[in-house]
Amino acid sequence: MSHGYDKDRYLARIKRIEGQARGVHRMVSEDAYCIDILTQISALTSALESVALGLLEDHLRHCVVNAARAGGEEAEAKIAEANAAIARLVKS
Amino acid sequence: MSHGYDKDRYLARIKRIEGQARGVHRMVSEDAYCIDILTQISALTSALESVALGLLEDHLRHCVVNAARAGGEEAEAKIAEANAAIARLVKS
Amino acid sequence: MSHGYDKDRYLARIKRIEGQARGVHRMVSEDAYCIDILTQISALTSALESVALGLLEDHLRHCVVNAARAGGEEAEAKIAEANAAIARLVKS
Amino acid sequence: MSHGYDKDRYLARIKRIEGQARGVHRMVSEDAYCIDILTQISALTSALESVALGLLEDHLRHCVVNAARAGGEEAEAKIAEANAAIARLVKS
Repeated sequence: MSHGYDKDRYLARIKRIEGQARGVHRMVSEDAYCIDILTQISALTSALESVALGLLEDHLRHCVVNAARAGGEEAEAKIAEANAAIARLVKS
Repeated sequence: MSHGYDKDRYLARIKRIEGQARGVHRMVSEDAYCIDILTQISALTSALESVALGLLEDHLRHCVVNAARAGGEEAEAKIAEANAAIARLVKS
Repeated sequence: MSHGYDKDRYLARIKRIEGQARGVHRMVSEDAYCIDILTQISALTSALESVALGLLEDHLRHCVVNAARAGGEEAEAKIAEANAAIARLVKS
Repeated sequence: MSHGYDKDRYLARIKRIEGQARGVHRMVSEDAYCIDILTQISALTSALESVALGLLEDHLRHCVVNAARAGGEEAEAKIAEANAAIARLVKS
């Protein structure tokens, strides 16, 4: 847990996401109806988004808070980096 | 290709998405840096979005166009269904 | 209503959106708390998204269905155009 | 600038957003083509998103960093609040 996030909490959720991705593959290979596949992809995207928001919260709570306390350029760099990651999430 | 989408085109892309999901799992299990994991999740979300947009285009081009030609309630139902799928994509 | 959407239904909603945009301007000019401004921006974005999904549904129901019935290149062009608009919405 | 964001920088951008909202209203009232209206709405949504990301960055850089330095419950509360705002942005 060197970066402040609870590994086990995420590993189980990402395992389920892997299963969802395999499910989408199977649906396409079995000629499932497009709309049903799109529904599964939306569920998968929401699950990923939720993992990303959790990791981001842990990151702010640990790395960013620690950097803020340390101060100086390190704090500045961590904020800029977190912001770039947030922008990618908002746009993806 | 019973629903009008090109299976092989999608199966290869979804296989890569499965690989990306496994990569995210491995990163978390190896204590990767949060921001690097978030970058991978954003890439995975974009890849999924792109598959979804492709499937949706194929769906409009085939199922919706055919239903429009058949007319009546079937056309109406297909449009409502496509719209609900688009709304889920926009919001996810 | 030459393009198949119900004007009055949208004009009232867009008027409210204009009011929300003025509200965000006022909040910033009065030094409102960042998080409160962000909450208003999220509400404004959701209202815009909802107008866009309504317009898109009307567009599919009228222009795209008519083009599908007419057939040929016109149908093809309308689908490609609708798809590009959907992709912009999903990515914005 | 009591909350750490540069007011003038944002006021000008939000004024432009108000103008874009009025432009969308005018397009609908003049029966513009749906797809052209959707293009304007996507541009407006992107402009709003960009203002929101700027405000969020300023907020992290000032309020959250200061709270982190103060420590204790205040830091915890600010992180939770920022995270809820980020989640709303990602989902809207």
